Amino acid sequence: MTNKESWLLPEGIDELMPDEAAQLEKLHRILIDKMQTWGYRIVVPPLVEYLDSLLTGTAKTLDIQTFKLIDQLTGRLMGIRADMTPQVARIAAHKLKHSGVVRLCYIGSVLHTLPEGQAKSRNPIQLGAEIFGHSGPESDMESIQLMVELLTLSGAVQTLSLDLGHVGIFRGLAEQAQLDAEQEQALFSALQRKADAEIRSLVSSFELNQDSHDMLIALAELNGGKDVLARAQTVLKNAPAKVLEALNSLTRIGEMAEQRLPSVTLNFDLAELRGYHYHTGIVFAAYQPGSAQAIALGGRYDEIGQDFGYGQPATGFSLDLKKLATQIPLDRQAQASVIYAPWSDDPSLASTVENLRQNGEVVSYLFPDEANPSTGQKILSKQQGHWVVTETGMH
Amino acid sequence: MTNKESWLLPEGIDELMPDEAAQLEKLHRILIDKMQTWGYRIVVPPLVEYLDSLLTGTAKTLDIQTFKLIDQLTGRLMGIRADMTPQVARIAAHKLKHSGVVRLCYIGSVLHTLPEGQAKSRNPIQLGAEIFGHSGPESDMESIQLMVELLTLSGAVQTLSLDLGHVGIFRGLAEQAQLDAEQEQALFSALQRKADAEIRSLVSSFELNQDSHDMLIALAELNGGKDVLARAQTVLKNAPAKVLEALNSLTRIGEMAEQRLPSVTLNFDLAELRGYHYHTGIVFAAYQPGSAQAIALGGRYDEIGQDFGYGQPATGFSLDLKKLATQIPLDRQAQASVIYAPWSDDPSLASTVENLRQNGEVVSYLFPDEANPSTGQKILSKQQGHWVVTETGMH
Repeated sequence: MTNKESWLLPEGIDELMPDEAAQLEKLHRILIDKMQTWGYRIVVPPLVEYLDSLLTGTAKTLDIQTFKLIDQLTGRLMGIRADMTPQVARIAAHKLKHSGVVRLCYIGSVLHTLPEGQAKSRNPIQLGAEIFGHSGPESDMESIQLMVELLTLSGAVQTLSLDLGHVGIFRGLAEQAQLDAEQEQALFSALQRKADAEIRSLVSSFELNQDSHDMLIALAELNGGKDVLARAQTVLKNAPAKVLEALNSLTRIGEMAEQRLPSVTLNFDLAELRGYHYHTGIVFAAYQPGSAQAIALGGRYDEIGQDFGYGQPATGFSLDLKKLATQIPLDRQAQASVIYAPWSDDPSLASTVENLRQNGEVVSYLFPDEANPSTGQKILSKQQGHWVVTETGMH
Repeated sequence: MTNKESWLLPEGIDELMPDEAAQLEKLHRILIDKMQTWGYRIVVPPLVEYLDSLLTGTAKTLDIQTFKLIDQLTGRLMGIRADMTPQVARIAAHKLKHSGVVRLCYIGSVLHTLPEGQAKSRNPIQLGAEIFGHSGPESDMESIQLMVELLTLSGAVQTLSLDLGHVGIFRGLAEQAQLDAEQEQALFSALQRKADAEIRSLVSSFELNQDSHDMLIALAELNGGKDVLARAQTVLKNAPAKVLEALNSLTRIGEMAEQRLPSVTLNFDLAELRGYHYHTGIVFAAYQPGSAQAIALGGRYDEIGQDFGYGQPATGFSLDLKKLATQIPLDRQAQASVIYAPWSDDPSLASTVENLRQNGEVVSYLFPDEANPSTGQKILSKQQGHWVVTETGMH
């Protein structure tokens, strides 16, 4: 291996250099502050947990995304978190139960075994917010509003569109059709890829009654503006009650979103299944025009706490802050220019430097053998007994 | 496994609940801001790297602390960072070379296979600052001063003592005595434990000349106030030139520290070897009275960039921010109390809430079916057409 190769980072693993890192740091503070003014309290879940605790209540797909480690102290399997939401749900179920409605937010590195899509990071910095203890559409609406507010505040997005779906629709239809796990998984996969021919041939192969057959086929086409909801009422009129409940819940949230977020384009996708990791109700994702990759996503996941002995309703969203930060044009103007101070034991210099720093100026010492700053840079020099900031080559 | 067991975190792995997490977040900002006003620019190294890149230029001890993963894309070994300093050195050597003096800072989660000592965390949040491109004692002094400044600023420490050592002293003596790797390691281990009898018996077994023998034995006792440096000049007078250079460098930094940090107790320890991971020069550690565990430590590590094709001098320090944050008494007063707003579509409510939040108030909506806040809590209610903040049970 050459020196050059030893520098290469693994595919999908990235690092931020000073300008981008400063932007990430700034965004971190703006978004955490905003969530805190909405009443979300920050928690810091651990980077690793025992695997059974980490994956409790979640689906196989999260398991596949999770790097496994052997705990040398116990020989038990640990996992590196691939998603912080189940960790926060565990914290809420375990340590904050019986507290009524609990709002929590978090930020931290997560790691994925494989990139989730083209050019997708394997080491996102996940930032998110979760509401526990409320099951109505209002808490879903708050999650969506906060997500949109943070994205707008970030300065990374100008116009937003919002995809809304409900995992109860597909689940209810699959259950009615009595699909086995393998069939459900195959159809799930085809629906996610919107592979029409495959969907048709799969559903035909299941030998269902006409209603079930037609409804499953129709699902893939129930995608678009709010007229989709009206069409769905007709197409799914013979669906089981829970499918219709899911549709009503989606409609209700769509109405609220239309009223509360007038500048956001709404798109309804009844085959939307991204939340299959652990979601149980509405799922939502924010997109920028021209991008197929969601910049933030979330949904309802009511059953996850059950496995920790305290089931409670839950809804929330998260985003990759690193990705968001690198989408903002670099603001090099915002960078404070450095004032250079000579290396000296003069106590009056030390206090001058301290005062400048207290006022938010950036002051670095020039080490004795360091090259002088180039012309036009700010330096501290002593003039008539006082330290003053001047520019090199100009005094 | 019972539900209760599924909640247990692995030993040495911890999480922060809201009060402590808020404290961590606050400290994060104060310390990063301070480093930035000193001219340190933030970078975000990745959570994982290829193992050979991650451990380049570091010692076996860091290898043992590092969790290994297989990259499923390439089959190559990756490591989860156990220490961010070598990562920052790689970034400086690779992406910021030929830039003169470069100051970088960072914050992030690291993971250790085993706790390093009693009650030690395996998942610290490492915060640190590094100076690249300067080899004189002044940059070591700046590192020490910044470390002390951050610890003082954190509010976690009242009085500080500083241990100073230089790995060149033991290394030079071991080289002169022509110890083989096994002998050096055995003596290193005994010196770290300050196991006097073992040190004596080991050194005797090496069958050295009288000078080498006496100097190695004396090392363990060269520990205390600045008189240690004078004693060392006598005891080590026949040591190789590089040992005497190391001693002079340590003395020079001790003098600067005494002048610049008058309130810090200095302790010199010539057998101080904590920096053996990759350090090459002075090593330093900050302690609180009554605690045997350093709360921050650092030193010089000039050779680490070499393996990346760009050797340059380097010095810096780091600390566990999670540990520091949990040492500060919780300031529950600092927590803004929540103002509860009713769930309503009234646009004048939305703008009132937005204004309050903009002013830093915490406002949470009460969901329609949520229990009312208890007496004495702040709520928004509409009175004569205006939304006002009142207290429950008092209007």
